[in-house]
Amino acid sequence: MTVPRVEAVLFDVFGTVVDWRGSIVRDGEELGREKEIDVDWAAFADAWREEYHPSMNRVRQGDVPWSKLDDLHRDSLEKVLDRFGVEGLTEGEIDQLNRTWHRLDPWPDSVPGLGRLRERYLIAPLSNGHIRLLANMAKRAEIPWDLVLSAELSRHYKPDRETYLTCAYYLDLPPERVMMAAAHEYDLEGARNAGLHTAFIHRPLEWGRERADEIRKPDESEYDVVADDVLDLAEKLGA
Amino acid sequence: MTVPRVEAVLFDVFGTVVDWRGSIVRDGEELGREKEIDVDWAAFADAWREEYHPSMNRVRQGDVPWSKLDDLHRDSLEKVLDRFGVEGLTEGEIDQLNRTWHRLDPWPDSVPGLGRLRERYLIAPLSNGHIRLLANMAKRAEIPWDLVLSAELSRHYKPDRETYLTCAYYLDLPPERVMMAAAHEYDLEGARNAGLHTAFIHRPLEWGRERADEIRKPDESEYDVVADDVLDLAEKLGA
Repeated sequence: MTVPRVEAVLFDVFGTVVDWRGSIVRDGEELGREKEIDVDWAAFADAWREEYHPSMNRVRQGDVPWSKLDDLHRDSLEKVLDRFGVEGLTEGEIDQLNRTWHRLDPWPDSVPGLGRLRERYLIAPLSNGHIRLLANMAKRAEIPWDLVLSAELSRHYKPDRETYLTCAYYLDLPPERVMMAAAHEYDLEGARNAGLHTAFIHRPLEWGRERADEIRKPDESEYDVVADDVLDLAEKLGA
Repeated sequence: MTVPRVEAVLFDVFGTVVDWRGSIVRDGEELGREKEIDVDWAAFADAWREEYHPSMNRVRQGDVPWSKLDDLHRDSLEKVLDRFGVEGLTEGEIDQLNRTWHRLDPWPDSVPGLGRLRERYLIAPLSNGHIRLLANMAKRAEIPWDLVLSAELSRHYKPDRETYLTCAYYLDLPPERVMMAAAHEYDLEGARNAGLHTAFIHRPLEWGRERADEIRKPDESEYDVVADDVLDLAEKLGA
């Protein structure tokens, strides 16, 4: 493996840096106890997340105007609440649950790994989450971004080419001096097509322990770096 | 004084958070020693800074396309080098001098004051400096922004209305939930016209000790807050 000469590393966030599933289960169970609602919150989290790509596609196709991710999450949440038969939540409770996405917990290696990478590279998120969501999340979880970037800056969602190129523009770097790190191959394909370098981060627990075996770890030849977690990425990038 | 109920405070940077003049003198003198160039670097810094508003006006009038501030600084620098009779600098040295604006030192109260404000508010720069310049500066000087915002996001310069409204948009806040803090009244007028709250920060030393008396401190009635420095702002905002 030759380490590519990049100045900045952009990170996918949901699943790559933070554990969305565990965090939704955490907040869901708390709400469930308070309101005496009996729901399988892991299944609820999965169902909510499964609405994610379809909801962005509705924006891409022009059926829904450009939206901050909170609005897409909220539409999906209402569907899923209905599907799981959850009733009796106040507007404030639904909003609070929707904003769980601002309060996702990092995987245990993420903050120490980013702390190391930050010594050598400029680091920023590039998520479909909007700027405010990412800023709230970073502040709460002490994620040491140098700056907060987002697909929102391009009014496109990943893996649209514009998202990667817009971030390179704000970093004032040509795409080949930027690396995209993500746990999802479609995201890295998009980044590669836009001329960025790529780092795969293996997150077998993203969809829970039961599905760990389904999460393929690619061969090292497929990306510039294939890492087991963010600390391993720091190690492999010499940080 | 009633403290307005805001969630975020945006800061002007050059002069308000950092001492551009002292930092240019610092780097200029070092370059002067290396290259045996005899220049009054304080006068040089002032002359460079005095090109700032005219250079942005050329973009506003359409004479020059939208530019990152590095490019405007560079055009101005070449004029000022010529005017001061500075010769014999390499391209690399000129570029390094131009990027002094990425390496400006904060006033002594800025980092501790922002550290306090950050406990209670979301804090970000709103400078005419571009995103990368502000990220580099924050990283070097350990300025604890929650996120890096900039006039660049609107492709306008302050005090154009778009700059303030675009930042409020990315903060996902109505303008009246945002405060602009600056040492320059034209900037606060622009922010107020866009519906933001305003905090004046008095920086009598911005243009050097000799001109301290010329820097008016407005009456407390003129802005939501009038502060002596960033620590005083933190105190007055209850942070």
